Amino acid sequence: MPIITLTTDFGAGSHYVAQMKGVLLCEAPTATLVDLSHDIGPQNIGEAARLLEHGTPRFPKGTVHLAVVDPGVGTDRPIVAIDAGTQRYVGPDNGLFGWIGNWADAAVVVDAERLGGKTPSATFHGRDIMAPVAARLALGAELTDFGEEHEILASLPRTIEPKKNGQSIAGRIVEVDRFGNLISNVPAGMLSKAPRDSRLRIACGEHETFGLQYTYGDHPPQTLVALVGSGGMLELAIVNGNAAEMLAATEGDDLLIDWKARE
Amino acid sequence: MPIITLTTDFGAGSHYVAQMKGVLLCEAPTATLVDLSHDIGPQNIGEAARLLEHGTPRFPKGTVHLAVVDPGVGTDRPIVAIDAGTQRYVGPDNGLFGWIGNWADAAVVVDAERLGGKTPSATFHGRDIMAPVAARLALGAELTDFGEEHEILASLPRTIEPKKNGQSIAGRIVEVDRFGNLISNVPAGMLSKAPRDSRLRIACGEHETFGLQYTYGDHPPQTLVALVGSGGMLELAIVNGNAAEMLAATEGDDLLIDWKARE
Amino acid sequence: MPIITLTTDFGAGSHYVAQMKGVLLCEAPTATLVDLSHDIGPQNIGEAARLLEHGTPRFPKGTVHLAVVDPGVGTDRPIVAIDAGTQRYVGPDNGLFGWIGNWADAAVVVDAERLGGKTPSATFHGRDIMAPVAARLALGAELTDFGEEHEILASLPRTIEPKKNGQSIAGRIVEVDRFGNLISNVPAGMLSKAPRDSRLRIACGEHETFGLQYTYGDHPPQTLVALVGSGGMLELAIVNGNAAEMLAATEGDDLLIDWKARE
Repeated sequence: MPIITLTTDFGAGSHYVAQMKGVLLCEAPTATLVDLSHDIGPQNIGEAARLLEHGTPRFPKGTVHLAVVDPGVGTDRPIVAIDAGTQRYVGPDNGLFGWIGNWADAAVVVDAERLGGKTPSATFHGRDIMAPVAARLALGAELTDFGEEHEILASLPRTIEPKKNGQSIAGRIVEVDRFGNLISNVPAGMLSKAPRDSRLRIACGEHETFGLQYTYGDHPPQTLVALVGSGGMLELAIVNGNAAEMLAATEGDDLLIDWKARE
Repeated sequence: MPIITLTTDFGAGSHYVAQMKGVLLCEAPTATLVDLSHDIGPQNIGEAARLLEHGTPRFPKGTVHLAVVDPGVGTDRPIVAIDAGTQRYVGPDNGLFGWIGNWADAAVVVDAERLGGKTPSATFHGRDIMAPVAARLALGAELTDFGEEHEILASLPRTIEPKKNGQSIAGRIVEVDRFGNLISNVPAGMLSKAPRDSRLRIACGEHETFGLQYTYGDHPPQTLVALVGSGGMLELAIVNGNAAEMLAATEGDDLLIDWKARE
Repeated sequence: MPIITLTTDFGAGSHYVAQMKGVLLCEAPTATLVDLSHDIGPQNIGEAARLLEHGTPRFPKGTVHLAVVDPGVGTDRPIVAIDAGTQRYVGPDNGLFGWIGNWADAAVVVDAERLGGKTPSATFHGRDIMAPVAARLALGAELTDFGEEHEILASLPRTIEPKKNGQSIAGRIVEVDRFGNLISNVPAGMLSKAPRDSRLRIACGEHETFGLQYTYGDHPPQTLVALVGSGGMLELAIVNGNAAEMLAATEGDDLLIDWKARE
């Protein structure tokens, strides 16, 4: 079963999305289409890159992820097709795949002439070039059917990496989810030598909490807790509440972690 | 054809939803996935319960409805799988199925160990436990493949039932839809002995209307009308207008119905 | 593979949408369902008509487009089924198909009694009549299985057509997309005798730009550019910016185009 996911900044309900789906289903009538998001902030490449990084790796082998956030449409920015682990990707090479690129096995620059058919429009390559490529990849085409190998993928300025210094770590908040949970750039592995009990302190602005909890619901409502979230990163949460609001914290804010040695 | 619907409070476009869909399609690659809503208010169990009650009974026999509004994730609140009429349900037993439970035929508490595979995360059972169970149920698994029978489902404080007293009924508004229609908790059957003409009065705050209409468009624009809606409940509407705004009415408001006897 | 798209004003996440999908999948269990939009403004027939006009023609032959924006539900407004080019449509004949109707090959008025089954509700024909018709059309039924031929489709007051007068055109803005691009009612063909260079002037309020560009990204950020968009219509855009905001322009505003003759 061919599976194609879609990530765009066109807005849910836009006729641009409808047109792309029409093209996808003409090329691959049996495909399952899965909307990841059409509400990426207009031209917000970083937001889409993060969704691709976290949302795509668990799809079945051979799934094609079509991503169209494309402020440079019609210019000479390349369109790329990528094989990365079990997943495949198509979109403009403008940083969208800056994180996916870390585990890319192969990439090609798409040559629109190899698609045949009509001359593509100048302003909607998502419909005229990327959707046909995505559909054919989902049906099993090879990357090299569409163009020549591409060595270097555009990168995004990655969020500053957390810094460890003895028994302290300087991290930051990189995502606020819909529940107001504050997800950091500190992976659980960085805490492997730290104690999990009250000797461990996690501070964000004037707020602090001690120890790592197992899950949200283990503590009384309105308590600030720190835990390792489902993506394997340290996060701060308010039990049954919204940490972003209660701490007045947001993406980019500093997170400080320190601890006393285990005895 | 396996069909799986999804109801969550993760937010449309969230990578949490993407991850669940990836898992569902790995387990059941031919499944049709149908989004009921991902925009349930954060941790609003009652809102999701109502969507399940009204939105799910018309799906084909064997459809699995996966519902993840789960403030207690990782605690000892049970995860349940339910057969109710022709439909199947999976989710945390926290009241989500308080209304569905009224017509449940069988329910089991899911034992995550029976799934095999990796240890589930503490904070995302929707992805790690419920999605695999939903996919396997959609493929035809038995409830008892996943755990032991569960007798009592958590209930929700059901909206106060309407009270009939001779020729009057005290009801209330339980839903405001996108058109501003005010849907009550008074079923049509409760009015079976009332006249449908102007001897019947329906009042909400200072506003009142007389008689039951057949449909919205039978009256001049901006008229307040009462009718039996598509779910079989008494509702108030403004023709081509928004009753919630014009009556300044909302969920929980009282609705009074009274009538003179038919002669 | 049967394909059915849905366009409604019910709101994404509404149980009305869920009920329609349940009915569609009962009738056509193998159908691919594609949401075009459920967030059409309540009872905004024109908005839905535009989405159908622009969003539907590229779907595979035989795709059925189910559109339910139906303020007259339950009254004697007809429900129609239409074959137009390669596409099929079902919905109330209230102007929803005012534009699609321009290329209709055949239309019938649906007679609900031919569906068999239960008496439809008075307030939800989308679920009780249109969804079953859409599903059966997607499975290959003939229009005439559902009713008698219908000659005249309800029309919408079409946006005033652009007026050409020698070397000038008076047009207007008919759509503002999510990026703030201002899409006009002036088709590229109307400019076929105009120069594409700086002798061509496009003005909107106090703002003007000269010449037609190939695409958005060919010019420095924040430049006002005019170009032919992906739908073949003249549009104004701000490179990497939002033209609607920067020009304080909106749907319905005038667009003036004039030029000096090519020498």
